Amino acid sequence: MWRRCGALGRALALRGLPGLAPGAAGRRTASGPSPPARPGLPCGTAAAGSQLGQSKDYALPNASWSQDMLDLYNRFLDMTKDGLWKRIPSYNNILDHIPESMKLTYEKRKDTRLFLRSIDAEGAGFEYVMFLNTSEKRVVCLFQPGSYLEGHPGFAHGGSIATIIDSTIGSCAISVAGKVMTANLSIDYVNPVPLGSVVLVDSKADKVEGRKVFLSCKMQSVDGNTLHAEATALFIQLDATKAQKQQASCQ
Amino acid sequence: MWRRCGALGRALALRGLPGLAPGAAGRRTASGPSPPARPGLPCGTAAAGSQLGQSKDYALPNASWSQDMLDLYNRFLDMTKDGLWKRIPSYNNILDHIPESMKLTYEKRKDTRLFLRSIDAEGAGFEYVMFLNTSEKRVVCLFQPGSYLEGHPGFAHGGSIATIIDSTIGSCAISVAGKVMTANLSIDYVNPVPLGSVVLVDSKADKVEGRKVFLSCKMQSVDGNTLHAEATALFIQLDATKAQKQQASCQ
Repeated sequence: MWRRCGALGRALALRGLPGLAPGAAGRRTASGPSPPARPGLPCGTAAAGSQLGQSKDYALPNASWSQDMLDLYNRFLDMTKDGLWKRIPSYNNILDHIPESMKLTYEKRKDTRLFLRSIDAEGAGFEYVMFLNTSEKRVVCLFQPGSYLEGHPGFAHGGSIATIIDSTIGSCAISVAGKVMTANLSIDYVNPVPLGSVVLVDSKADKVEGRKVFLSCKMQSVDGNTLHAEATALFIQLDATKAQKQQASCQ
Repeated sequence: MWRRCGALGRALALRGLPGLAPGAAGRRTASGPSPPARPGLPCGTAAAGSQLGQSKDYALPNASWSQDMLDLYNRFLDMTKDGLWKRIPSYNNILDHIPESMKLTYEKRKDTRLFLRSIDAEGAGFEYVMFLNTSEKRVVCLFQPGSYLEGHPGFAHGGSIATIIDSTIGSCAISVAGKVMTANLSIDYVNPVPLGSVVLVDSKADKVEGRKVFLSCKMQSVDGNTLHAEATALFIQLDATKAQKQQASCQ
């Protein structure tokens, strides 16, 4: 375990992640307090939100998370204590991700699901949690692909890799430019990702030119020894007026 | 309806699809006989396979398919009659897509699902059917994104678009080069795809250089008036020895 923590430290240090002290992680439980999904709400478990009638936050440990996933989660949670990194909550309806002031634009449909949260069984779909570092314009996602994401036998489908990269890099673009849409996503698939493994998706906004946000991303194994994928993306910043027009023209 | 059929005819004619006679489509049922998913098996309905203890073929009409989807399906089915186009069956376990002789390499896991068939409820996930034209090195996919594929409110997630493109273009690469893996996928997202709409994903192998297969793809509305996405891809042909080594190194 120490070797793995050391390897993780080295892998992340290469990308400039701060404060990774080997051995600080908890074991099989989420030891540290996580930032609340909503102000004032405790959220040490995934069920916390739903118990209080709030939307359930899925970016919290559950029984399907492997030891690697829990260790990484706890290490990132430690890094949130100084406020530089923040955990991003995750709900299964996109409207729960949108500020209250903007929700009036949309009618909430109960039959829709955010694509990444469309598979109910814990551990079968996208198990992931994202952490944001605003000052570095960076979002890191811890991702454990489940058995329902299969492409080649035993490995995650290229579309599921594209999906988690689009979401991670998109969250990074949103943190920089607010409401955005993907204009281009280009992915080099280097090594396949085994189902049930854990990978780090590390995205960064490289440049902003007017309404264009250019980003890049790497997907690596926890020990940093395997590069699974690299990606670049262009996102376009939308203002509310343009977004409404675009929506109207497509309906 | 005639206008739509005419628009479809024009849209597909631009891409060189043969024999689209306006008005030939059926209404709310799959009128024509479909090519059997397995030799000798009738497959006029999605349940045909499972009734005989075979894997269920999901690339057949179900109650969630819209009129646009059914019309398109029937038009493509008509085009299979001269043997130039073939419908590609679709199962929810990847091993059912692999020739018997290659299955010995893999252990069948009952808990895995092909990513695109991971959502059980009809109409909620990826509703699609692909048609192959071997002589044109081309695969066209009819795609109706369901309510569980949401990204921006009311629209298909960019990851779900990438997934159906990767699968369509991948099927095209397989038809040209056998066992392949995605090396690069680059997508330009032009206009968002409304949930429940129907789009055509039209892919083509442009060039083969050694083990490299270069492909391109367009995603358009049924009437051909809206370009939703364009993509290019590079797939690498794998031989069995290399594939086994790659699998072993990742496990």
